[in-house]
Amino acid sequence: MMLNFFDEIKNELRIVEDELKLAVRSSDPLLTETSTHLINAGGKRLRPAFCLLGGKFYNFNLDKLIPLAVALELIHMATLVHDDVVDSSLTRRGIPTVKAKWGNRISTHIGDYLLGKSLILISRYENPLIPKVLADTSVKMCEGEIIQITTSYNTDQTIRDYFYRINRKTALLISASCQLGAVACGAPAPLHQSLRRFGHHIGMAFQITDDILDMTAEQIKLGKPVGGDLQQGIITLPTIYALQHSSERQKLHELITKPNKAEEEINEAIALITACGGIDYSAEMARKYIVKAKKELSRLPDVPVKKTMQIIADFIAIRKF
Amino acid sequence: MMLNFFDEIKNELRIVEDELKLAVRSSDPLLTETSTHLINAGGKRLRPAFCLLGGKFYNFNLDKLIPLAVALELIHMATLVHDDVVDSSLTRRGIPTVKAKWGNRISTHIGDYLLGKSLILISRYENPLIPKVLADTSVKMCEGEIIQITTSYNTDQTIRDYFYRINRKTALLISASCQLGAVACGAPAPLHQSLRRFGHHIGMAFQITDDILDMTAEQIKLGKPVGGDLQQGIITLPTIYALQHSSERQKLHELITKPNKAEEEINEAIALITACGGIDYSAEMARKYIVKAKKELSRLPDVPVKKTMQIIADFIAIRKF
Repeated sequence: MMLNFFDEIKNELRIVEDELKLAVRSSDPLLTETSTHLINAGGKRLRPAFCLLGGKFYNFNLDKLIPLAVALELIHMATLVHDDVVDSSLTRRGIPTVKAKWGNRISTHIGDYLLGKSLILISRYENPLIPKVLADTSVKMCEGEIIQITTSYNTDQTIRDYFYRINRKTALLISASCQLGAVACGAPAPLHQSLRRFGHHIGMAFQITDDILDMTAEQIKLGKPVGGDLQQGIITLPTIYALQHSSERQKLHELITKPNKAEEEINEAIALITACGGIDYSAEMARKYIVKAKKELSRLPDVPVKKTMQIIADFIAIRKF
Repeated sequence: MMLNFFDEIKNELRIVEDELKLAVRSSDPLLTETSTHLINAGGKRLRPAFCLLGGKFYNFNLDKLIPLAVALELIHMATLVHDDVVDSSLTRRGIPTVKAKWGNRISTHIGDYLLGKSLILISRYENPLIPKVLADTSVKMCEGEIIQITTSYNTDQTIRDYFYRINRKTALLISASCQLGAVACGAPAPLHQSLRRFGHHIGMAFQITDDILDMTAEQIKLGKPVGGDLQQGIITLPTIYALQHSSERQKLHELITKPNKAEEEINEAIALITACGGIDYSAEMARKYIVKAKKELSRLPDVPVKKTMQIIADFIAIRKF
């Protein structure tokens, strides 16, 4: 899926796509097959795109950006594959994934393989900031995943807990993508640090919107069952807000903490969350992050890519997929 | 477990142990608990030891060695945790592991977390050879794991296939440990490349011996059920030899390819493998690698640590645990 505001970097993204396929090739046929399956399954390639766009703020150098852009997508793909690893008790509503097709063991090793390939690409960079930021990000991403598992079905979570978690789970890698694209092109610290902050705000808005869409999107557009988070006990911003503000808090609490919810129960929970303003509140939060992102943009040099970044910022919070 | 030929680096290994514990601490209590559980479960700390000993061949500098030694053990631990991730159909004979205690999902993320922490340590090194070798090694280790899974129960494997696989699975990281210890201390290429070859031979002998012990050790010393490889369909050197040389090839083939073997069947297979010389042949192969290792050692400068390396080489192939 190519988003049209990526027109500016259309050709570069095609190169990333080709390089991604080259990067995962192995003498082992299963590794090549599974990795290629993952690449062909598509994705928005947001992280490579932000990396390339970040580079446009300084001395854009495609050769220096490509390995990094590919590495960022490989890291993202590895986390997706590892997220697919589940315990057997949780496979009931499973959808076709690498895990479903090849099992947990293979999924685990493929994720490690993709991470290893990203390391090979990253180890080419001489600027120590690139491996440093990515190492730090990967550790924090694991923390985010673990927190998501350990706090599932926990209705005591605060909005602050939620922001802490989605920063680790999502925003940090998007933030690193924006920043390191500029770093790879030799940008000075004030510039790449500003891009890092921009990426943080965009990443937060992106995940909040993701969590809204999980409740409001049509299943066909979402590509997975609506209410998936609620089914897995993942408590997101609309739910946290509703648990504090719904006039039917008791009922909502019961529904949310129930394992193996029926479809009607999921729909009832979503209706309660929506009725008390949980969705509207969350959309407002996403918009606030977009405002922050655009404010950060205003501090960046007036280069043509700035306009593209503004359009992307606006899109992030209103997207329907 | 402290092996007494590590006396020379006893104090340094204690520091590694402390630094390992520090390295895995997280603001998330579960991550700290599970990682600390893994560290306290022990291990020979072979990779940090080889790294430190490698450094003794040049300008030994503990400050430069410690992060690397810790990173090597973290990478090793991560592969162990990820090996614990299994499909539910394979848990029947499972022994208590992180996976048994916390489940597949947590195991996957903890492995990633340990890898991420190792990256943070590695990213401190300015010499690009260190991340390069480790990235390459980690990719090949995944290939080894995948090959082990995809070739399980495959009786067509050759001895060459076996060597290819155990090089990836085991020897490469031991080899990297020996080499990079010297690299971290600034050793010139001929020296650290010689140590890399030494480590390769030692690593191969180590894994062959491991595979022999899986059939011959007492369960109590092994710490896991005897014949575990046969039970999981992993076909190792003694088995490959026996499939080619046993007078009861047909019977052996039947036993080996049978899923869910009874204990008597495992014992019968081991008896057939031993009777035709599969164990003796494998022990001879391990000894040949030790001879190669010691030949490589003879090319290294005459420093006191050389004697220690010789003793370790001799021990590797005669060890009973």
